[in-house]
Amino acid sequence: MPGYTTIEWEDGVVRMLDQRLLPEQVIYNRYRRTSEVAEAIRSMVIRGAPAIGAAAAYGLALAALSSRAENLDDLRRDLAQAAEVLRQSRPTAVNLSWALDRILQRMEKSQPITVEEARLFVIEEAQAIAVEDVETNRRMGLNGLPLVPDGARIIHHCNTGALATVDYGTALGVVRAAHEHGKKVHVYVDETRPRLQGARLTTWELQQLGVAHTLVVDGASGYLMSRVGIDLCLVGCDRMASNGDAANKIGTFNLALAAHAHGVPFYVVLPFSTIDFSIMSGDEIPIEERPEEEITRIGRTQLSPRSVSAFNPAFDVTPARYITAIITERGVAYPPFEESLAKLKEQ
Amino acid sequence: MPGYTTIEWEDGVVRMLDQRLLPEQVIYNRYRRTSEVAEAIRSMVIRGAPAIGAAAAYGLALAALSSRAENLDDLRRDLAQAAEVLRQSRPTAVNLSWALDRILQRMEKSQPITVEEARLFVIEEAQAIAVEDVETNRRMGLNGLPLVPDGARIIHHCNTGALATVDYGTALGVVRAAHEHGKKVHVYVDETRPRLQGARLTTWELQQLGVAHTLVVDGASGYLMSRVGIDLCLVGCDRMASNGDAANKIGTFNLALAAHAHGVPFYVVLPFSTIDFSIMSGDEIPIEERPEEEITRIGRTQLSPRSVSAFNPAFDVTPARYITAIITERGVAYPPFEESLAKLKEQ
Repeated sequence: MPGYTTIEWEDGVVRMLDQRLLPEQVIYNRYRRTSEVAEAIRSMVIRGAPAIGAAAAYGLALAALSSRAENLDDLRRDLAQAAEVLRQSRPTAVNLSWALDRILQRMEKSQPITVEEARLFVIEEAQAIAVEDVETNRRMGLNGLPLVPDGARIIHHCNTGALATVDYGTALGVVRAAHEHGKKVHVYVDETRPRLQGARLTTWELQQLGVAHTLVVDGASGYLMSRVGIDLCLVGCDRMASNGDAANKIGTFNLALAAHAHGVPFYVVLPFSTIDFSIMSGDEIPIEERPEEEITRIGRTQLSPRSVSAFNPAFDVTPARYITAIITERGVAYPPFEESLAKLKEQ
Repeated sequence: MPGYTTIEWEDGVVRMLDQRLLPEQVIYNRYRRTSEVAEAIRSMVIRGAPAIGAAAAYGLALAALSSRAENLDDLRRDLAQAAEVLRQSRPTAVNLSWALDRILQRMEKSQPITVEEARLFVIEEAQAIAVEDVETNRRMGLNGLPLVPDGARIIHHCNTGALATVDYGTALGVVRAAHEHGKKVHVYVDETRPRLQGARLTTWELQQLGVAHTLVVDGASGYLMSRVGIDLCLVGCDRMASNGDAANKIGTFNLALAAHAHGVPFYVVLPFSTIDFSIMSGDEIPIEERPEEEITRIGRTQLSPRSVSAFNPAFDVTPARYITAIITERGVAYPPFEESLAKLKEQ
């Protein structure tokens, strides 16, 4: 394990590594209120679909802990309010809603008699979500392992490592599993504009894991495939429709198009909780638009004339037809994904 | 005309707008030596294939002016040396070699009798190259005009405006011609990592021209085409093979792949001097690799862990099959380009 923890529950306090400051500074923030957790998600102290799920879960646990409700109905009202605040923080990642719904359902199913009991169920379930996430990631890593040849040159977009999850990672978890099993791999790290999660976070994680890597700009993938040689692409996912369409960090779709044109396998790695079976296609996935300043400024440096307007969709949708396979903790799904995902769902 | 000049010859001094400082500072540098001009090209004080051609031409003119040769053979030797220094400054743009060869050939053809006469021919020809470049660009703009529908939403990569040429621009020249002819267009400006020519230079030029535009990250083109709607792409070129394969700023190939997948016309705009008829395909085009720091740092901000290594190819090659048409000052070429370009060459 590397020497950092993305998110932790510590006696009624949520502790998060502030990813906006990495790799220059390693600073942990502590949160005691649901609204603070929602703001941390919105401002991207924490990011990555599975990590957002865990953060939302702990945010709800904080609400349960601090509620002054004296009966179950009042507690339910407080929790519903808190869940709504958390749900508004970021619209695209479905793990957020999934975690909240799972906790509220678990509480009802357990038929608590006292407020104290209900509070405990909520906190327990939030912790269960975090613990399971690590196990889920390890299983994805093992399921993806056979798809990574020894000596593989891999393009990876955004950050999907321990920092994007509670620990271990999704797409980077597959890289990590390959590395741990003695396969030699080289990762070309897309810097991932505008927020540079690749340049800042993925390189940092790969350094600590001792995996060989090279930083590139997002626009270099066509060049790498045509002139250098790439064996596969590995990306994560923020929400997948039941047909396999995958919303992920802006630039993922372009990478998939380059892979398709060059016959390079394109794998999406995600926990099952990222699949939204309530929607038929990616057209139904809301795409978050983030502040223009993420594009026009970096640190203290203004990149464009000050009055320029920018358009900053945080995600794009890769149509299922450009995806070679979907790697989940339940197994690997191949096209047609409607069928293969539905089959894995029944397991 | 906007109120800036990319490059000028002023009584034996070459004056260049330092594009590394734009848009924050508008500063002109003055050069009296060939080696300084070569260094200005290498360090990208000036960039853009046609502008590099003009800079090389003036660099050779400086060599002619400052040579202490007392006979024609000595002058030829000095000029050949200067040409070699200039040729080494950047390897991909062919306009550089084209300009140098044209000047040296002109000098020989004119059969100078004295050193003074030869010197004059060199300086005259360098000035002719710069003057012709503007006229060439205007003709490209007019030739491209019918391909731009009124209301067009255009994606543009890198900078190809007045700053990339002596004046007016290549791909942006087509935008400018459309704007001047009363067509309403909206340009989505690829920021163009790593050096951000789009964010810094293209937005600046479009502001001064009064053309509507929006800055986007390079990875957003797939999203824009699938969700927003794009009518065409316009890019420049640093060297084209005789089959139409086009070397241009890194990320151009990815944009072409996105356009191809969405049925969006992809136009390459270039002066005929950018076509290298001595090579059969893009495989023969040398691709410059630039310093890692262009990716790992912006201004004073370190983007990645300090020890990370980056791979920074400045250009990629878009295969001719992804190009809808090639817009030149001699006319518009359609596939198969071997034939259509050869035909235009004969004009």
